[in-house]
Amino acid sequence: MSDALTEDPRVTRTRNDVLGAAVRILVEHGWDEVTHARVAKEAGYSRATVYAHWPDRIDLLRDAFGRYGQMPHHEPTGDAVTDLRGEVESFCRAMVEYRLDRALATLAERAQMTPEVVAIRDSFVAEGERPMRATMPDLAQGAAAEASIQMLCGMVTHSVLMHGAPPDAAVLDAAVDIVVRGLHRS
Amino acid sequence: MSDALTEDPRVTRTRNDVLGAAVRILVEHGWDEVTHARVAKEAGYSRATVYAHWPDRIDLLRDAFGRYGQMPHHEPTGDAVTDLRGEVESFCRAMVEYRLDRALATLAERAQMTPEVVAIRDSFVAEGERPMRATMPDLAQGAAAEASIQMLCGMVTHSVLMHGAPPDAAVLDAAVDIVVRGLHRS
Repeated sequence: MSDALTEDPRVTRTRNDVLGAAVRILVEHGWDEVTHARVAKEAGYSRATVYAHWPDRIDLLRDAFGRYGQMPHHEPTGDAVTDLRGEVESFCRAMVEYRLDRALATLAERAQMTPEVVAIRDSFVAEGERPMRATMPDLAQGAAAEASIQMLCGMVTHSVLMHGAPPDAAVLDAAVDIVVRGLHRS
Repeated sequence: MSDALTEDPRVTRTRNDVLGAAVRILVEHGWDEVTHARVAKEAGYSRATVYAHWPDRIDLLRDAFGRYGQMPHHEPTGDAVTDLRGEVESFCRAMVEYRLDRALATLAERAQMTPEVVAIRDSFVAEGERPMRATMPDLAQGAAAEASIQMLCGMVTHSVLMHGAPPDAAVLDAAVDIVVRGLHRS
């Protein structure tokens, strides 16, 4: 926050341009292509500028995922069930519209072998789950809340990464209904 | 089936040895290391033997995943809820004991860019989900059954690939309870 308030607007614009380019390359061409040289070219800046802001490539990747994670979510209505369903739908849409499938597959795979990626994955996932976690206390607490979040997010992750497509509308509706009913009887 | 019945036992043994070695390399060192040369060395056969059985590397990988997928599952009891819970627990254990986390992360990531891997992933996932799909008709049909499978498998996949560890016992129990209760009220 204090960075954003005190930062020179030209620096802010440069960082925005470069991170936007890094996200595009990440989504379209994959993790390995996010290099200083390629990002500089795509953003229309010199390599020296990109190196000056991000001496280490892993920091450029971390900030690119930070930018990428600012994608739109469901607009909360205050009704917990509506908002829960809205977040699951928004997660499904992001898989297609923002190619979140590729980002998550890459983070899952790289985090297995590269410790620096674990922190990037954890921040990105925490940011993605934040709205659902904000809605959940109106419906459940403790292990039941955690189980509901992991099942609803997991249905989308598993469908996309293991079956190649998000759940269809009937399955999504059935899942939200099962969770809401299951919580109300517990 | 007819292959297994008519195959020369020495051929069967060779295939078993080679695929066992391929699975070990896959799990310990990753997809890129599953090459004819490395698998031959690990299995104690000549490269020519491995090439004779699997001229294409992708076929060696496919058969290695086929072998790997024959890991033990929960022993069915006939009680649908017990068997559902047992399968979720068995899926969690496989993530740790058989490093299924690595296999799934690799399949998810490779399937994004390589069409041949989609078929390998689909077979591997279908084999993994088979016991849970066999249990489900006693509890639910249609979209509710599919949602339950995707949520329970997805909870494990999402926890492991996005949070770095399987769900703990309290979350796993809560999830199964929510699904069973949610289905009974629908």
